[in-house]
Amino acid sequence: QKSFRITVLPGDGIGPEVVDQAVRVLQAVSDALKDVDLKLETHLFGGCAIDATGEALPASTLTACKEADAILMGSIGGPKWGVDSKVRPEQGLLQLRKELGVYANIRPAKFASDSLLENTPLKSHIAKGVDIIVIRELIGGIYFGKRKELGVAPDEDVAWDTMPYSVHEVQRITRVAAQIALVADPPLEIHSIDKANVLASSRLWRKVVTETIQNEFPQLKLDHHLVDSAAMVMVANPRKLNGIVLTENLFGDILSDQSSIIPGSLGLLPSASLASAPSLPSSPNFKPVSGLYEPIHGSAPDIAGKGIANPVGTILSAAMLLRYSLGLDKQAAAVETAVRQVLDDTNIGGYGLRTADLGGKTSTKAMGDKIVEVL
Amino acid sequence: QKSFRITVLPGDGIGPEVVDQAVRVLQAVSDALKDVDLKLETHLFGGCAIDATGEALPASTLTACKEADAILMGSIGGPKWGVDSKVRPEQGLLQLRKELGVYANIRPAKFASDSLLENTPLKSHIAKGVDIIVIRELIGGIYFGKRKELGVAPDEDVAWDTMPYSVHEVQRITRVAAQIALVADPPLEIHSIDKANVLASSRLWRKVVTETIQNEFPQLKLDHHLVDSAAMVMVANPRKLNGIVLTENLFGDILSDQSSIIPGSLGLLPSASLASAPSLPSSPNFKPVSGLYEPIHGSAPDIAGKGIANPVGTILSAAMLLRYSLGLDKQAAAVETAVRQVLDDTNIGGYGLRTADLGGKTSTKAMGDKIVEVL
Ligand SMILES: CC(C)[C@H](C(=O)O)[C@@H](O)C(=O)O
Ligand SMILES: CC(C)[C@H](C(=O)O)[C@@H](O)C(=O)O
Repeated sequence: QKSFRITVLPGDGIGPEVVDQAVRVLQAVSDALKDVDLKLETHLFGGCAIDATGEALPASTLTACKEADAILMGSIGGPKWGVDSKVRPEQGLLQLRKELGVYANIRPAKFASDSLLENTPLKSHIAKGVDIIVIRELIGGIYFGKRKELGVAPDEDVAWDTMPYSVHEVQRITRVAAQIALVADPPLEIHSIDKANVLASSRLWRKVVTETIQNEFPQLKLDHHLVDSAAMVMVANPRKLNGIVLTENLFGDILSDQSSIIPGSLGLLPSASLASAPSLPSSPNFKPVSGLYEPIHGSAPDIAGKGIANPVGTILSAAMLLRYSLGLDKQAAAVETAVRQVLDDTNIGGYGLRTADLGGKTSTKAMGDKIVEVL
Repeated sequence: QKSFRITVLPGDGIGPEVVDQAVRVLQAVSDALKDVDLKLETHLFGGCAIDATGEALPASTLTACKEADAILMGSIGGPKWGVDSKVRPEQGLLQLRKELGVYANIRPAKFASDSLLENTPLKSHIAKGVDIIVIRELIGGIYFGKRKELGVAPDEDVAWDTMPYSVHEVQRITRVAAQIALVADPPLEIHSIDKANVLASSRLWRKVVTETIQNEFPQLKLDHHLVDSAAMVMVANPRKLNGIVLTENLFGDILSDQSSIIPGSLGLLPSASLASAPSLPSSPNFKPVSGLYEPIHGSAPDIAGKGIANPVGTILSAAMLLRYSLGLDKQAAAVETAVRQVLDDTNIGGYGLRTADLGGKTSTKAMGDKIVEVL
């Protein structure tokens, strides 16, 4: 009998709605397995936590996250806690990432079903077959460097931020990218992104990525793109970036949002943030890693409470959770297959369900119902 | 008799080829005007300057640029002077921008001809009507902040860059954006881009942009987008960003490359870098500004010397030069019209010429020939 502790952070806006459906999926998976027991515990995080406790990340939530085998998150933030507020939900998220040490953010962008090709903003022949895993360094760079606000002495009318990277930080995220690349057969190509023609931190990045791959993973293909050029290629011919897009924190923030719109809707895509390289349950030296799993979309306050949000991104995040943190690879794959079938057109044996973000009328719950049913 | 001094910097790769055609266009314009005399002077800049003199920006080139009424540039760089070289062409470009004080980089992205809709990677109905002017702060931020390289003490295994912005720097670029917005009727909307939920420099940016518009240009519409979200919107529904995208240096580098692919090809788009707000020749208080004009594409070493590069971006840069630096608005518009006609499909009275980047076979020179002819 294996027992896993999962901390659930529904968050704000549509967060609770989409998390509900992902929790049902997790529950369905564990019900079907006699020897697995999931203990789910819900905690306050984000704007709702600010309202209730004054803090975005209350101490009890942080403790629950640190003790869990995995964390499933919805989304946080909203106009109520805007840029001018003293305490902001995003600060809680950055603090949580840092405290958990989840330096590796993994955001796959591919078509959950080819029948979504009509929903991509790109011409279908350009989008077809896009299969990019953005691997973003998540707890370094300009997000966590020293900064000075406007109005603080000296130079009160200047504000600045610092973008630092150390050899160690770049080595470890490169290793995560390499290990994920090696799971595929043939191994995935690695496209490293930087602005080495301008930034010192990017020159360090490029040198360390190059040396780490050459010395430790000589079988892998590696190339380098300047971030401006990568942003262009990702629209012009995104398949050129198929494989792994390996990038520092800020560039990864931008490029992963950009890539995530290609497969039809932000609402479809999952993410995992891990504190070490994941292994696959099928590998001989599998070791589950704890991690933070969340859809890549935001809290979408405009549609919150209407029951129309797309739960697929959160459900696929739960699948990543099953795979990387619980070692339940088969079950993860089953969830992914169920999602694909529910999205697939009816003429290829699917159900063709579409939530509002994909131009359809299926509700959040009806989507969850069908996925659980198919599962 | 008005005489203008134009410094021409052909640069590297396809630079000389595309600049040749733009120079022909300028020459044709001045030939048709009895009272205007253009003095063109070519100087070494970029990789070719490194090869000849050891410096990317030789002192004589810099002097010629400072003394000119306007500068027309091709493109610089290439694998020969890569990231690991000691002296790099890009350093020369950054130095030139700084020395000239051209803090306002203007990059319009719109369809030169609607018949290019088939060349955009976006679905036609999504790309149609995109009309975005990116206004990028060009001599501040992380491009010019203090930095430390890997291997330099203390903390030899850390490299860092600083992203500073002052109130003054943000005010002046906001004023350029506002003045360009006001030339249109109705005035263009301003979309300011930042990452204010994380960066101190972005919080300064957002505050100063907001106050400058509110106090000095209350008639203008302004909204704010986080850079990650803007990168997403620019693919999902780019018309939402129609008007002016106002942004700091690094975000502008990324977003302007991204936006530039929408109108069909990088090869089509011009840019201007100015040291003050431009006015229109038709305005009562017109004052020509000196500026640096260049296509937004790079030196494309893979097709250099083949005579197949698209000269339109450089020719449209020359049109911006005529408008902003020489006060020849009518002539600028005539060049733009000629370009449109040469690109327009034959069934709407155009010539439908296409260079290789647009899937066609027209050579660089044939494209220039036809534009000069139509002109
Ligand atoms: C909310 C914000 C701080 C965060 C980030 O920039 O990392 C978000 O955009 C993300 O990508 O998860
Ligand atoms: C060549 C490089 C330094 C430059 C920049 O990053 O500004 C280029 O990408 C541009 O956008 O003009």
